[in-house]
Amino acid sequence: MIGIDPGSQRTGFGIIDVDAVGKLTHVHHGALAVAGEDTFPLRLKRIFDELTLIIGDHQPAECGIERVFMARNPDSALKLGQARGAAICAVAARGLAVHEYAPTEIKQAVVGSGRGDKTQVQHMVGILLGLKGPLQPDAADALAIAVTHAHTRASLARVGIPRTAWRRR
Amino acid sequence: MIGIDPGSQRTGFGIIDVDAVGKLTHVHHGALAVAGEDTFPLRLKRIFDELTLIIGDHQPAECGIERVFMARNPDSALKLGQARGAAICAVAARGLAVHEYAPTEIKQAVVGSGRGDKTQVQHMVGILLGLKGPLQPDAADALAIAVTHAHTRASLARVGIPRTAWRRR
Repeated sequence: MIGIDPGSQRTGFGIIDVDAVGKLTHVHHGALAVAGEDTFPLRLKRIFDELTLIIGDHQPAECGIERVFMARNPDSALKLGQARGAAICAVAARGLAVHEYAPTEIKQAVVGSGRGDKTQVQHMVGILLGLKGPLQPDAADALAIAVTHAHTRASLARVGIPRTAWRRR
Repeated sequence: MIGIDPGSQRTGFGIIDVDAVGKLTHVHHGALAVAGEDTFPLRLKRIFDELTLIIGDHQPAECGIERVFMARNPDSALKLGQARGAAICAVAARGLAVHEYAPTEIKQAVVGSGRGDKTQVQHMVGILLGLKGPLQPDAADALAIAVTHAHTRASLARVGIPRTAWRRR
């Protein structure tokens, strides 16, 4: 599965594999730096094109993305929204279901508490996936979302909730 | 050329042809109502998919879209941003250049004054393109953007500015 942390400057992505017993394996991660593109539409195209390639290469079956509750101001919300729209289109165009997670759900899944801070989340993601060295923050956030989706998926499967009911409204 | 007026509820589109002497001909217009989709990502996918089909059918070579200066609040800016990101991706993925126009430029091009109101713009678009009856407002706005791009393109061509310089930064 792929986790995506969209942004108009950098869009993080993280891909992990989950086996039948719920063991997580790191596959790939990175951050697309698009701020250097000539125009904002070209940034969106870069996000769309690169994610399309990455999804084509690694064939994740599902996608997790952070739910945005309240952006700081209208201008940054508009920029973030456009990056998010480009990312979601890349994913949805390849037929992946998109699952949204609140920041507190991600913290809960990765550090065991909804109150953990970002640094803690980024640190724990490295430990959970056996990665050495510091992770680029946007890539770490994207991996954290993928881990959250893997955990949620496993929990729902354990209590027998059918796959079709997982899609978040 | 195609003009697009993106929105998270309805995305208007308008396609016009421009001949060698700058005469405008209406080709197609409409508004994609996506509010009924189950999830927000599915709305974005609908916008992307439908615009991809429309562009495939009518093969416009260029695209105009309204520049957003300031959205009302962060929440609506985020929603608008995502719809805008989906629309721009659909256009950019088909290789069309995206040109952004400020609301005042659109009013100036269509009603001859940057201070015209929305109803006036919608009314004038119908007259300019020889359309009978009232237009759906989002489709009318999209046609107005297409008309603006046609006018700008013609003016730039007249003063000899090369096509490659038209892309707005």
